[in-house]
Amino acid sequence: MNLQTASPEEIRASIRQGALTRPTSGMAKGYVQANVVILPSKYAYDFLKFCFKNPKTCPLLDVSEVGSPSFSKYGKEADIRTDVGLYRLYKDGKFVQEYEDIKALYSDDMVSFLIGCSFTFEHALLEAGIPVRHIEENHNVPMYITNIPAQPSGTFKGNITVSMRPMTMAEAIKATEITTHFKEVHGTPIHIGNPSEIGIGNIDQPDFGEAVTIKDGEVPVFWGCGVTPQSVALDAKPDIMITHAPGHMFITDVKDSEMS
Amino acid sequence: MNLQTASPEEIRASIRQGALTRPTSGMAKGYVQANVVILPSKYAYDFLKFCFKNPKTCPLLDVSEVGSPSFSKYGKEADIRTDVGLYRLYKDGKFVQEYEDIKALYSDDMVSFLIGCSFTFEHALLEAGIPVRHIEENHNVPMYITNIPAQPSGTFKGNITVSMRPMTMAEAIKATEITTHFKEVHGTPIHIGNPSEIGIGNIDQPDFGEAVTIKDGEVPVFWGCGVTPQSVALDAKPDIMITHAPGHMFITDVKDSEMS
Repeated sequence: MNLQTASPEEIRASIRQGALTRPTSGMAKGYVQANVVILPSKYAYDFLKFCFKNPKTCPLLDVSEVGSPSFSKYGKEADIRTDVGLYRLYKDGKFVQEYEDIKALYSDDMVSFLIGCSFTFEHALLEAGIPVRHIEENHNVPMYITNIPAQPSGTFKGNITVSMRPMTMAEAIKATEITTHFKEVHGTPIHIGNPSEIGIGNIDQPDFGEAVTIKDGEVPVFWGCGVTPQSVALDAKPDIMITHAPGHMFITDVKDSEMS
Repeated sequence: MNLQTASPEEIRASIRQGALTRPTSGMAKGYVQANVVILPSKYAYDFLKFCFKNPKTCPLLDVSEVGSPSFSKYGKEADIRTDVGLYRLYKDGKFVQEYEDIKALYSDDMVSFLIGCSFTFEHALLEAGIPVRHIEENHNVPMYITNIPAQPSGTFKGNITVSMRPMTMAEAIKATEITTHFKEVHGTPIHIGNPSEIGIGNIDQPDFGEAVTIKDGEVPVFWGCGVTPQSVALDAKPDIMITHAPGHMFITDVKDSEMS
């Protein structure tokens, strides 16, 4: 199977059978990949409301019915218990261990959330000739915890996390124009230019991921980051929470081009 | 007080004091007006999810915390118990009576939803020289129940209702372009051209509102309509539900221009 041209259904089937456990970057090219958060139903209302109130950092793509392993729009035939290559289990906000499927953990009382990820808009930036430095340098995007509070919802609260891509100001303006059309995957930047203005002390020491080269004449451009919903959810210390493991995204049935 | 130029806060204060009970069309010009749905918290999750799944017919602007009479974004100083001129009470899906305030009906277990209304994008259409026939003819917009099912959420389900504005096809294309930028107030049309394709038998007999003149060379253009959330909510027969009375909208602190 050519993983780049295979359909989302084929890839998910292969993951489900345990034949494919690698990170999903580059698979099913052209289809939206999503962050996954699975919570008991008692947390679902406040988390859904958190997503609604924080669309730039927590862009909700789809939400399952309680106890349903599939998604009405992003994965009608999917099974969230088996179709992610690697999962993480957290209890009371603390990481416990990773699992290749969650059939033994999942219960009929759980709700699954799919949250937009930046793969989609990075593809559009690259097509417009805008540099995406961490891809050029072949490592993870640098991420920073800001001093900007997310809109709280029930027990879910905390400061938002941003990802950073350096570029010239002309490119930053073009990138803002492009990402206007990607509201479901973080939308336009949160900030352009001055890291300290959003509470970032040292641009060379990201809180997550790895630092990238900022060339002469470039400014750092910050977008809301999908780490926020996970970190905010963990801060609320739910008795159980399951997520995808970093890089092992859920591959949806929706095309990137349907999002812009 | 000049109602057209008064601030949302001034208008709401006047309504709160019982000094102003008229329909709000034209008041606090330039500010978003919203449909109101108030439900006990046990229905809030499914209704919030219904709004998320049906953004074109049910564009959620804001949602209160449980028992809070104000809104974090659209009305920080507002009081939903008193700031609408006229309310409607429904029990088990049936209309009971209208109230000028709901202080005696409201409980700490209720959640209030603000839903976008078409006033905002109609203003933008008029500014672009596109006719809005029911305003020209000085009556309510014609509304039709379609054969298009809304995405269901828990007990909330049913077919979507659309409003109709006739115009030339060139104007319809321009109107689609304009409403692309108004995703929080119904967004782009649901259908252009053929009423029977979306289950509308007789364009001259709307299900709600009043018919408008369709001139030679004009096509009917259908947008999602704020009647949908109310009618869908009533079909679910919640034991209690409170809404604004038609035309008596909630005036928010957010400007129309912040929405596009």
